[in-house]
Amino acid sequence: MIAGIVGATGYGGMELFRLLSTHPQIKNIQLYSSSQAGEDFETIYPQLESNKRHTLRDLEAEVMKEECDVIFLATPAGVSSRLTPDLQGGKAKVIDLSGDLRLKNPDEYKEWYKKDAAPTGVLETAVYGLPEWNQEAIKQTDVIANPGCYPTATLLGLGPVIQGQLAERSSVIIDAKSGVSGAGKNPNPLTHFAHAQENFQIYKVNQHQHIPEIEQQLEQWDGSTEPVTFSTHLVPMTRGIMATIYFTLKEDLSTEELLARYRDHYAAHPFVRIREAGQFPCTKDVYQSNYCDIGLTIDRRTKRVTVVSVIDNLMKGAASQAVQNMNLVFGIEETAGLPERPVYP
Amino acid sequence: MIAGIVGATGYGGMELFRLLSTHPQIKNIQLYSSSQAGEDFETIYPQLESNKRHTLRDLEAEVMKEECDVIFLATPAGVSSRLTPDLQGGKAKVIDLSGDLRLKNPDEYKEWYKKDAAPTGVLETAVYGLPEWNQEAIKQTDVIANPGCYPTATLLGLGPVIQGQLAERSSVIIDAKSGVSGAGKNPNPLTHFAHAQENFQIYKVNQHQHIPEIEQQLEQWDGSTEPVTFSTHLVPMTRGIMATIYFTLKEDLSTEELLARYRDHYAAHPFVRIREAGQFPCTKDVYQSNYCDIGLTIDRRTKRVTVVSVIDNLMKGAASQAVQNMNLVFGIEETAGLPERPVYP
Amino acid sequence: MIAGIVGATGYGGMELFRLLSTHPQIKNIQLYSSSQAGEDFETIYPQLESNKRHTLRDLEAEVMKEECDVIFLATPAGVSSRLTPDLQGGKAKVIDLSGDLRLKNPDEYKEWYKKDAAPTGVLETAVYGLPEWNQEAIKQTDVIANPGCYPTATLLGLGPVIQGQLAERSSVIIDAKSGVSGAGKNPNPLTHFAHAQENFQIYKVNQHQHIPEIEQQLEQWDGSTEPVTFSTHLVPMTRGIMATIYFTLKEDLSTEELLARYRDHYAAHPFVRIREAGQFPCTKDVYQSNYCDIGLTIDRRTKRVTVVSVIDNLMKGAASQAVQNMNLVFGIEETAGLPERPVYP
Amino acid sequence: MIAGIVGATGYGGMELFRLLSTHPQIKNIQLYSSSQAGEDFETIYPQLESNKRHTLRDLEAEVMKEECDVIFLATPAGVSSRLTPDLQGGKAKVIDLSGDLRLKNPDEYKEWYKKDAAPTGVLETAVYGLPEWNQEAIKQTDVIANPGCYPTATLLGLGPVIQGQLAERSSVIIDAKSGVSGAGKNPNPLTHFAHAQENFQIYKVNQHQHIPEIEQQLEQWDGSTEPVTFSTHLVPMTRGIMATIYFTLKEDLSTEELLARYRDHYAAHPFVRIREAGQFPCTKDVYQSNYCDIGLTIDRRTKRVTVVSVIDNLMKGAASQAVQNMNLVFGIEETAGLPERPVYP
Repeated sequence: MIAGIVGATGYGGMELFRLLSTHPQIKNIQLYSSSQAGEDFETIYPQLESNKRHTLRDLEAEVMKEECDVIFLATPAGVSSRLTPDLQGGKAKVIDLSGDLRLKNPDEYKEWYKKDAAPTGVLETAVYGLPEWNQEAIKQTDVIANPGCYPTATLLGLGPVIQGQLAERSSVIIDAKSGVSGAGKNPNPLTHFAHAQENFQIYKVNQHQHIPEIEQQLEQWDGSTEPVTFSTHLVPMTRGIMATIYFTLKEDLSTEELLARYRDHYAAHPFVRIREAGQFPCTKDVYQSNYCDIGLTIDRRTKRVTVVSVIDNLMKGAASQAVQNMNLVFGIEETAGLPERPVYP
Repeated sequence: MIAGIVGATGYGGMELFRLLSTHPQIKNIQLYSSSQAGEDFETIYPQLESNKRHTLRDLEAEVMKEECDVIFLATPAGVSSRLTPDLQGGKAKVIDLSGDLRLKNPDEYKEWYKKDAAPTGVLETAVYGLPEWNQEAIKQTDVIANPGCYPTATLLGLGPVIQGQLAERSSVIIDAKSGVSGAGKNPNPLTHFAHAQENFQIYKVNQHQHIPEIEQQLEQWDGSTEPVTFSTHLVPMTRGIMATIYFTLKEDLSTEELLARYRDHYAAHPFVRIREAGQFPCTKDVYQSNYCDIGLTIDRRTKRVTVVSVIDNLMKGAASQAVQNMNLVFGIEETAGLPERPVYP
Repeated sequence: MIAGIVGATGYGGMELFRLLSTHPQIKNIQLYSSSQAGEDFETIYPQLESNKRHTLRDLEAEVMKEECDVIFLATPAGVSSRLTPDLQGGKAKVIDLSGDLRLKNPDEYKEWYKKDAAPTGVLETAVYGLPEWNQEAIKQTDVIANPGCYPTATLLGLGPVIQGQLAERSSVIIDAKSGVSGAGKNPNPLTHFAHAQENFQIYKVNQHQHIPEIEQQLEQWDGSTEPVTFSTHLVPMTRGIMATIYFTLKEDLSTEELLARYRDHYAAHPFVRIREAGQFPCTKDVYQSNYCDIGLTIDRRTKRVTVVSVIDNLMKGAASQAVQNMNLVFGIEETAGLPERPVYP
Repeated sequence: MIAGIVGATGYGGMELFRLLSTHPQIKNIQLYSSSQAGEDFETIYPQLESNKRHTLRDLEAEVMKEECDVIFLATPAGVSSRLTPDLQGGKAKVIDLSGDLRLKNPDEYKEWYKKDAAPTGVLETAVYGLPEWNQEAIKQTDVIANPGCYPTATLLGLGPVIQGQLAERSSVIIDAKSGVSGAGKNPNPLTHFAHAQENFQIYKVNQHQHIPEIEQQLEQWDGSTEPVTFSTHLVPMTRGIMATIYFTLKEDLSTEELLARYRDHYAAHPFVRIREAGQFPCTKDVYQSNYCDIGLTIDRRTKRVTVVSVIDNLMKGAASQAVQNMNLVFGIEETAGLPERPVYP
């Protein structure tokens, strides 16, 4: 198979490039760039030099969609909404890592992203690529909207209780924390080392564009349009997301019983691991892997549930989940080309 | 004035030593140690060498309580419960930075600290030293229980709404994050650099000993014994606490109106700073200062309030708050000897 | 005294502002800005709010030089070379924290800074403000060139042996490491958190503009124009410099004898602390202080000397050394307004 | 092939386990432990759970040497010196990651390690496993002494000039910096997060046990017993080593000519990458890879050479180099099972 990447020099794109390079089914990787076409990728990034070299190719949709089997768009918001329509209808499947194709409602996209939405046709075609919940639809589509990093951690942590109608929807609060790489490669004052180091920051309070993405999926599960509280913080580390999720249950369950529901839901899914009662994952438990680790407990005093869900934001939150989706789309084994274990320390 | 410190080699004690060294009213600092009596402090810690030297003195309560005007106990749980009774009745006021004297109910101490509580008489005498709320009582006592780091950030963030009966008590969730110095000076696997760096950890879920301390004060404000949800996380940084606090209001207020209540409550308190609407503090905004900075907003969608309260856990969360309490007890200006501004970057 | 600061929003300027705010001899601080004149400083930086507020004033040299007793220039290279001449001849003493006035030879400035040098007259007037070596000249000047961060650590570490003609000049190698704040406040790819964290970088190999500054002072000490090897590295931390200095001795001395020379040289200087044989400082030993800590040893196998010299780059390497110079210029006690002890942890 | 690991819970051992798990030639991994035999590895470390589980087996040399094809010893100093003799003579090849088998001279081991050396017979058999220089010997041995992390970075950086007799041996100074994981998994005060963070430390000045290891190889290359200066520093990061190496040349070469020598030497070695003139690697350029990246320049002023050599201390400095050695010993492709590209960011 031949894989194309648009945006290989961003953080998500670079991880994709690394993963696809050693994927057993990928014979060739082609990198596309409108601004640097013709240049040698490994000359620009000597640290990525290996036994193969890659020339950046021109971003011509007509050519790309025939020469690639799969095209990954690791581009900023506003690019794939315009590019995807041109990439459809050829040989290539499209996997978009940006937020452009995730929201079915174009008005919502416009409201939260402050940009024009993709054409309705594309939005209708695109399948939300959360493999642990949408596997069948993923296998049958040509266009995948790869989920956002925060939504991945949040939805995997909430899926069993929301789909199972176990949680009071209005009680759901997600307090999420992310490493700085989530803010991307462009330097800015908030991510300047001397500012971000030894600092813990909250940002976009009640305004993060991942909120409607989370709520759209929750509604699909339980039909409720009740909004959730979702906060995002910047942790002085490069990678990792922890979502600490709070809610109350509609019925009386023990921690063990609730854990059993989670284990049932994820039994067939190799990349979600449920901890024993009393154990909680830290972000390093999934470092540079495609795992989402989940721990939970019910407080005997408040009766409130605390679910802790961790991922690597650049992997399960972006690149490795995109590869997982590619595996499903092409009928390859779901775990192919993905790290078997996280890196430690 | 002569100040004594027990436990000057711990993190809180070292900060105390630094602050008292340049306090305009402190003429002399005496350091006490049972295990290292007779040794020269600056020989053990050459980085603390200055124009004065300090010999560690024996820990003899009878002598200490007459030669010091104020004695700070910066000791682990279980020490001051036994030591404080012996230090009472002399010239010295006692300011305890540990958790031993904070909980009025000895059973609760035993339950959460897994140790024997201090004698009831001491617990009754000790005043909870949260200067922005207990100022009058602090001024009249001989024994101060200096608040814990998490409770300081949490209670300053919740005070105006709980005392003002504005919040639904059962809706209160505090998601707190702390730098690693809060875990103290003793190396352990969780705080080993290679483990804690590039890692975000949750710990003591629903079991942190600061929970009853928070609830005790909340009850004093609004009479309710409703438990709160309080979670603690370890951030890969040395100092700083952020408490992200969620609750719903009993009445319909705008963000501006709620901010006005906070500003009113803290108008006379120089160390609490309230941000403008739409602005939120980060932990570096209060680095190495005695400030607690607070920002808040009401989500138009969920109607839920998010309050963000930040402190330096070793300063307002320990040492500098202890100095602030000393100032109040001795009728010194409240800001004396405390940094005028945080350190940045 | 009234102190003026140009560039108070940079890292060095902010530290200056903080130190001068609590300096016993400074009654008033005035902040100057050409671009933000008229704005309220504490509104722009709410985290710096205190009991006083500061309006940014226009940068008018004629006015400034009469209303201030001392003016600090915490500006990028190329500003004070043009501004200082206009500030001379009035009441105010000028202390320049940039590199503009340090090199006596304008050609050398031009070569290493790639900018036009200050007028020769100013360069001749300006005194290099390394208080431990130039104290008498500092006391008698109106214009001080505050030393660079790397040169401060390096020259304090080399002074006793170079001035004492003890070292083979051609053998001197300085391997220096700095925290990221040394690169200033402007975000760039090298100091972007996700790049700089978990990374150790070398930069400007053999091309750092502090090389001629170091060599100029060495030549003043021993008359030799022999160049030295000086390398600079970026450490994933905000503050701190360590210079690891290697050289061979001309004569046979023991570690203890060499340490004695250092102790003699610095006996009257409160901000240089010499460690015992076998002990070496780390950068945290001087965190947020004006200290320079030095340890050294002679290798029995290679006969080579290793000197380790550490400072806080924003303090002794910039702001607090500027205050120390101000103290000397105005006949104030050298330690006034400076922290008595470093901050830990 | 069946691979055994002793010490899989240390940092080096854990990386080995991860790499071998996906190595195309390894069918089975067996973990041995004297203290935890019988326990389930993935129960102790749930974050390492995958599709296979591993029971810790008893440390019985007689059994191990027949059931394994290769045994990796990732144990502290003093273990493999006693264990290796018992593991010899069976089917298994032994690859020792500790320092026990590296020094040919038992007296030197005793002097620098303060422990008894391995039996002379074992020391004579063991081949120093630096694949870029000892490839032929490695392919023919049963016992490999896997090089230390610092020596790997240093020797790869010095090899071409020392073996080529180009450098003045007495001029060689190596200023090395390492991430904290090099100090191992046991918590101690120097590696406690609150101490190591925002700190840069020098340690074991002139006393590091890797000094004789470096000198032994240098002597093999040029016959000289001249000692070198080698310093070690602790960087506040988890992984990565940079060796900044200084020396003078015996003959007059340009930077380009010297670079050409390096490129020649390493042309056939896929894991050493030489940068273009004017470019220098940072430690993140080799993060989690088996690469050693090298940049160098000759200072036109001092004529001194600066070589910068970086590795990941747990990979090329330990685990991945051990796998590279295994590949060579068994005639597998040298790059098999090793990451094709470093991880970024």
